[in-house]
Amino acid sequence: MGLHIVVLAAGKGKRMHSALPKVLQPLGDRPLLKHVVEAAQTLDPEQIHVVYGHGAEQVQSALGYLEVNWVYQEQQLGTGHAVAQAIDDVPDDARVLVLYGDVPLMRAGTLSHLVEASGSDALALLTVVLEDPSGYGRIKRNDENRVVGIVEDKDTTGDERYIREVNTGLLCAQSRHLRDWLSRLTNENTQGEYYLTDCIAMAAGDNVQIVAGQSGNVEETQGINNKRDLALAERLLQRRQADALMDQGLTLRDPDRFDLRGSLRIGRDCMVDINAVIEGEVVLGDNVTIGPNCVLRNCQIGDHSQILSHTVIEHAQVGARCQVGPFARLRPDTRLADRAKIGNFVETKKITLGVGSKINHLSYVGDAKVGNNVNIGAGVITCNYDGANKNVTTIGDDAFIGSDCQLVAPVDIGKGATIGAGSTVTKTAPPQALTLSRAKQISIDGWKRPKKHTPGHD
Amino acid sequence: MGLHIVVLAAGKGKRMHSALPKVLQPLGDRPLLKHVVEAAQTLDPEQIHVVYGHGAEQVQSALGYLEVNWVYQEQQLGTGHAVAQAIDDVPDDARVLVLYGDVPLMRAGTLSHLVEASGSDALALLTVVLEDPSGYGRIKRNDENRVVGIVEDKDTTGDERYIREVNTGLLCAQSRHLRDWLSRLTNENTQGEYYLTDCIAMAAGDNVQIVAGQSGNVEETQGINNKRDLALAERLLQRRQADALMDQGLTLRDPDRFDLRGSLRIGRDCMVDINAVIEGEVVLGDNVTIGPNCVLRNCQIGDHSQILSHTVIEHAQVGARCQVGPFARLRPDTRLADRAKIGNFVETKKITLGVGSKINHLSYVGDAKVGNNVNIGAGVITCNYDGANKNVTTIGDDAFIGSDCQLVAPVDIGKGATIGAGSTVTKTAPPQALTLSRAKQISIDGWKRPKKHTPGHD
Amino acid sequence: MGLHIVVLAAGKGKRMHSALPKVLQPLGDRPLLKHVVEAAQTLDPEQIHVVYGHGAEQVQSALGYLEVNWVYQEQQLGTGHAVAQAIDDVPDDARVLVLYGDVPLMRAGTLSHLVEASGSDALALLTVVLEDPSGYGRIKRNDENRVVGIVEDKDTTGDERYIREVNTGLLCAQSRHLRDWLSRLTNENTQGEYYLTDCIAMAAGDNVQIVAGQSGNVEETQGINNKRDLALAERLLQRRQADALMDQGLTLRDPDRFDLRGSLRIGRDCMVDINAVIEGEVVLGDNVTIGPNCVLRNCQIGDHSQILSHTVIEHAQVGARCQVGPFARLRPDTRLADRAKIGNFVETKKITLGVGSKINHLSYVGDAKVGNNVNIGAGVITCNYDGANKNVTTIGDDAFIGSDCQLVAPVDIGKGATIGAGSTVTKTAPPQALTLSRAKQISIDGWKRPKKHTPGHD
Repeated sequence: MGLHIVVLAAGKGKRMHSALPKVLQPLGDRPLLKHVVEAAQTLDPEQIHVVYGHGAEQVQSALGYLEVNWVYQEQQLGTGHAVAQAIDDVPDDARVLVLYGDVPLMRAGTLSHLVEASGSDALALLTVVLEDPSGYGRIKRNDENRVVGIVEDKDTTGDERYIREVNTGLLCAQSRHLRDWLSRLTNENTQGEYYLTDCIAMAAGDNVQIVAGQSGNVEETQGINNKRDLALAERLLQRRQADALMDQGLTLRDPDRFDLRGSLRIGRDCMVDINAVIEGEVVLGDNVTIGPNCVLRNCQIGDHSQILSHTVIEHAQVGARCQVGPFARLRPDTRLADRAKIGNFVETKKITLGVGSKINHLSYVGDAKVGNNVNIGAGVITCNYDGANKNVTTIGDDAFIGSDCQLVAPVDIGKGATIGAGSTVTKTAPPQALTLSRAKQISIDGWKRPKKHTPGHD
Repeated sequence: MGLHIVVLAAGKGKRMHSALPKVLQPLGDRPLLKHVVEAAQTLDPEQIHVVYGHGAEQVQSALGYLEVNWVYQEQQLGTGHAVAQAIDDVPDDARVLVLYGDVPLMRAGTLSHLVEASGSDALALLTVVLEDPSGYGRIKRNDENRVVGIVEDKDTTGDERYIREVNTGLLCAQSRHLRDWLSRLTNENTQGEYYLTDCIAMAAGDNVQIVAGQSGNVEETQGINNKRDLALAERLLQRRQADALMDQGLTLRDPDRFDLRGSLRIGRDCMVDINAVIEGEVVLGDNVTIGPNCVLRNCQIGDHSQILSHTVIEHAQVGARCQVGPFARLRPDTRLADRAKIGNFVETKKITLGVGSKINHLSYVGDAKVGNNVNIGAGVITCNYDGANKNVTTIGDDAFIGSDCQLVAPVDIGKGATIGAGSTVTKTAPPQALTLSRAKQISIDGWKRPKKHTPGHD
Repeated sequence: MGLHIVVLAAGKGKRMHSALPKVLQPLGDRPLLKHVVEAAQTLDPEQIHVVYGHGAEQVQSALGYLEVNWVYQEQQLGTGHAVAQAIDDVPDDARVLVLYGDVPLMRAGTLSHLVEASGSDALALLTVVLEDPSGYGRIKRNDENRVVGIVEDKDTTGDERYIREVNTGLLCAQSRHLRDWLSRLTNENTQGEYYLTDCIAMAAGDNVQIVAGQSGNVEETQGINNKRDLALAERLLQRRQADALMDQGLTLRDPDRFDLRGSLRIGRDCMVDINAVIEGEVVLGDNVTIGPNCVLRNCQIGDHSQILSHTVIEHAQVGARCQVGPFARLRPDTRLADRAKIGNFVETKKITLGVGSKINHLSYVGDAKVGNNVNIGAGVITCNYDGANKNVTTIGDDAFIGSDCQLVAPVDIGKGATIGAGSTVTKTAPPQALTLSRAKQISIDGWKRPKKHTPGHD
C-alpha cells in the first residue's frame, strides 16, 4: 500500500510582512518548505505532491529542483480544495499523508507513527496536548478513550473546553476515503472555504475508525504565521541541532548561543565556544577548539587546530595544529598546511601556506604560493591586483619577509630570501640573498611642527 | 476632570551599590525615571509631578530638562508623605495617578485602564496575580468579588495567605479623597514612615469604592531594587522591542540576542543576525541584512546593502547595494554612495566615497573626498593629521591607489590617476598619469641573517 | 568529632564521548572534580579522600597537586565498594560525607547543613523535590514525617510513585555505621555492583535515625553524564557567578551572555556589555565599562577606562581613563599608563605606553618603551623580530610617528622627534628633529593601465 504525501504550501503568509512567500522564509539554512519536503522524503513515499500558489514563480525559482509533483492552485479555496486537487491521480488503495509547508519542524519518527496509525482503513490525526488549548479544535473521545470527533473551539460546550488534546491538522487516511469526503465538502462557512478538517466528522459519520497519533513534542507542531513564530522555530531548530551534536560528544559552552546553518561534522573532543555561526559544510577534526564569536563557512579544520576568537573563515582548509586568529579572516581558497599560523588583522585569499609558516600581523596575502617555514612580517601586502588582472606571488621555503613590504605580483621570492622592511618588491628576489628597496634615512634639525589652526580631532 | 500624575523618585536604591541614584540607572538607552515619565506623558495629563530627593543634583543634571513639576523631598518620610507634598496644589476635582520611578516597564494601556477604573469617585488599584504572593499585600474581595481592602502579608490569617492577587502600589484616586486620607496618615509603624497604602483602608472606611485594575502582565509591574532586577528589566524591555519589530516584519535570527538602545526604523525584508547592538537612531532600508556581532549607532543603511559580521558603524550613511565588513569600522561622517564597498580591517572617518568605489583591505581613510569607481588598495593610509591639524585628501573618479600608499594631506589625486604601490604622495598626482615614489630594489648576496642569541617569541 | 569527605571520581563517563575522564571535563575554568574538592575544602575536613580509577594517569597529571588522599580503585565494583576502600583508615567516631566528582555545583551551605543533620548518630541524606521524580529513589516518610526508607523507582507501589522527594546519593554518617553497613553489602543485582544506597535500608533495619537534609536548589544536585548535562551545568555556574557579581553592584546588560572562567574583582559602577568572556584573574577599577563581545584574560583595567567592543586583552595592564578598542588586541606585557589610547586594528605586545599616548589605527607595536604624549600614526610597525631575536624600540616623550613607518629595532626615537610618513627608520632619530626616508615622487604621463585578460575578482 503506497504512501502519497501532500504538502500544502500555497499560502501567502500576509503576517510575515514580506515579499517572500511564507514557505520560502529561511529557517536555519533553507526555506520552510524544504524542511517539510525533507521530512516527507524520509518516509520514502511513492510521490510527494506540493500544492503551491502564492508567489508561484519565486517558489519555482527557489525550489523547482525538488523531486516532487508540483500542483499549482490558482485560487485558494481552502485546505480541503487544495488536497482534493493534489490527490486526483492517487490510486484508491494508497495512503495519503497531509503536511503543511509552514510546519517545518516535524520529526520523521512522528510522521511515520502517524502513517502506521492510519492502518489499513483508519483516519489518523496528529494531536498534541496543550497547556492552554483555547482556539484549537478539541479531540473528543468516548468512554473507551477512542476518538469520536473534533469539537471546534467556538462549538465547545460544558467541560469540552477543558479538553487539552487538540488537533494539529496533520492527518493520514486512505486515498479513496479522503477523495470521497473531499468531494462532499461544502464551503458554507464564514470564510467561504473548503476545510480539510470537516472530513473528520464525515469519517465519524461513515464509521471509519479515527485514531490519534499523539505527538509528545509540542514544539514540532509549531506553525509559522509571523516573524515571532519564525524566530521561535529558528531557536527550536538550533537547539535540536545543538543537542544532536552534544550527543555526539561536542562540547558547547552555551548551546543557546550556537547557530548551525548547514552541516557540521566533528571529530573527538572538539570544543566550540559562545556565539559560533556555522554555515555550509564544516568539518572539524579531533581536538579542535573554536573560540568565541567565530563565523565558519564551508571549511575544514584539522586535528588539534585552534581557531581563536573573532575569526571568519570561508571556503578554506586549515591543516593540523594550526592557530588562526583572533581577528583573522580566511577567504576562499585559503589552504593552510600543518602548524601554519595566521594572526590578528590578517586576510588571506587563494593561497597555499606551507608547513609551519606564519602570517602573524596586519597583512593581506592573496593569490600566493607560500612555502614551508616562511615568516611573513607585519603589514605585508601582496599587490595581486593591478587594476585589471590578478597576479600570483610565489615565496620559497624559509623566506623572511620584513614588515610592511609590498610584493608586487607577479613576483617570485626565492628560497631563504630575506626582504628588508618597507620594501616594494617588483622583480624576483634571489634565494638566500637580502633584497630591499630603501631610501636613505635623513634628519632635519630645527624642523618646526605645524601649529594648530583649527580645532582638530582624529 | 484633569489628571495629575505623581512619580515617586526620591529613593536612594542602596542595594544598587552605585554612586548613581536608582532612578538614573540606565535601562535600554535612558534612565529608569525617563521611562516612567514617558509612559506618564502618553496619558496627556495636566501635570506630571516628580518627587525627587536622593542624588538631587544628579537627577536635575541628567533629567532637569523634562517638562515636569519637580518636587524636592528633603527627608524621606514615606510614600504617603511624598505624595502629599506633590499634590498640595492639585485641584480637588482632579484625579491623581501615582507611579514609581523604579517601576519602568508599565505599559500606557495598563495605566489608562487604571485611570478609567477610578471613575468619578473610586480608588483604583493596580493589582497583579502572582504564582507566589508571599511578601505582598493581598487583595481582599467580598462575595460579589468587589475589593474590600488589602491585607498586608504579615497580617494574613487563615486562607488569606493563599490569595494570589496582590497590590502593586500603583493607584489612582480623586485628589480631594487622597488629600484627605494622606492628612490622616500616621507614622506609627516599624519604619516610622507615612505609607500611601494605608489610604486603602481609609477608603474602605469611608465607603469609597475600591476597584482593581488587574494587569495581565506581571512583568510590567517589575520594580527595580538591585542589579539583578535591572538586568531582568533590561531583558524584558529588549524582548518587548524585539517583538514589536518582528511584528513589523523584521527577521531576527535570535530575539534574545538583540539589543536596541534607541530607535530602529526598518524597511521590508530586513534580516538582523545574532548579537546586534543598535544604539541611537538607526534606519534600515528594504532588504538590508546585518551580520552577526555588529554594532550600529546613529546610521542609515540603504536598500539591499549588506553589513557583514563584526562591523561597527557610528554616525554614518551607507547607500544602496553597498557591502561593508566583516571587521569594518565606519566612524562619524562616513558617507558611502551606492554600490560602495568597505572590506576587512578598514577604518573610515569623515569621508565621502563615490558610487562603486572600494576600500577592501586594511586601510585608514579619513578626511577625504573620494570619487566614483575608485579602487583603494590594501594598507592605504590618508595621513590626515600632521600633529596639529586635520587636512583633506581628494581623490578623483576612476583613480587606482596601489597598496600601502600614504597620501599625505592636503593632497589631490587626479581623475584616473594610478599610484604605484608603497608610494608616499605628498603633492598633487596628475590625472591619468602613473605617480609613484620608489627606491631602487637591490639584492645583497651572501647576506647572513642574525643568529638567535636569546629565546625569542613574537 | 572529625569530618572525612569521600569523593567518588572513578567513573569513565562513556556518554561524554571523550578521551578525557569525566571528572576532568572543564566547567568554567576548571575540571569538575576540582569544583567538588573546593566545595569539600570549605567544610574544613580532617581529610578528603578521592577515589579515582578511569583515566588515572590523566587525573593525577591534571590534579595530582590537590591536597587529598588519592585512593586508586582498580576495579569499579560500585559506589559502596568505592566508599569502603576510602574509609578503611577513618576513625570510628568520625563522620563521613560522600560526594560525587560529577556533581560539581553543590553549595558549601548545603553540604554543611547535611553534615550537621547527621548529628552524632544519624544517617543524613540529601534529598530534593522534583517536578517529575520518575527514575529516582523516593524518600518514604512515616506519619510523623520522619524518613523511614527509600523506595527505588522500580519498586514503587500505589501512591509511592507520586512521592516527589527523591534521594540525591549524597549522604553523611558515622564512620563506624558506614563501615558496618558497607561490609554487609552484596552485589546480587543486575549490575553486579555494591551499592552505597543499600546502606539506607540497613540503617532503617538497625534503627539508626535517617534524616533528610533537603536542598532547596535542585540545580546544585545536577549530575553530569553527558555533554548536554555539562553545558547545562556551565550555564548554571555562569548564572550563579553573574548573580553574585550583580549583588556586588556590577551592571550586566545580559547575565545570560556573560562568561567568567576565573575570578573577576570589580570596583563601583562598572558596566559589562553583552558576550564578555572573562578568563583568569581580571580586576576592574571604578566606573570601568566593557563593550560588547570582548575577551579579557588576566588583566587589570583602571578607573574610568573604557574598553570598546570586539577587544581582546591578555595579561595586560590598562591605566585610568584609557580608551581601548574597538577591534584592539593587547597581548601579554602591555602596560598602558593613564589616558593612553589604543584604537582599531592595533596589536600591542610587551610595551609600556606613556601617559596620554595614542596608537589609534592599524599598527603593531611590540617590544617597545613609548614615552608620554606620543602619537603613533596609522599603520606603524615596530620591526621587533629580525628572524632570530626580538629587539627593543624606544620612543621619547612627545614624539610623533607618521603613518606607515617601520621602526627597525633596536632603534631609538628621540624626545619630540617627528618621523615622516612612510619612513623606514633603522638608526637613531634625533630629538626634536624631523627624520624621514623617502624616495622622490615622480609622475609618468601617458602611462597605460594593464588590460584585463582574465576574469578577475579580488
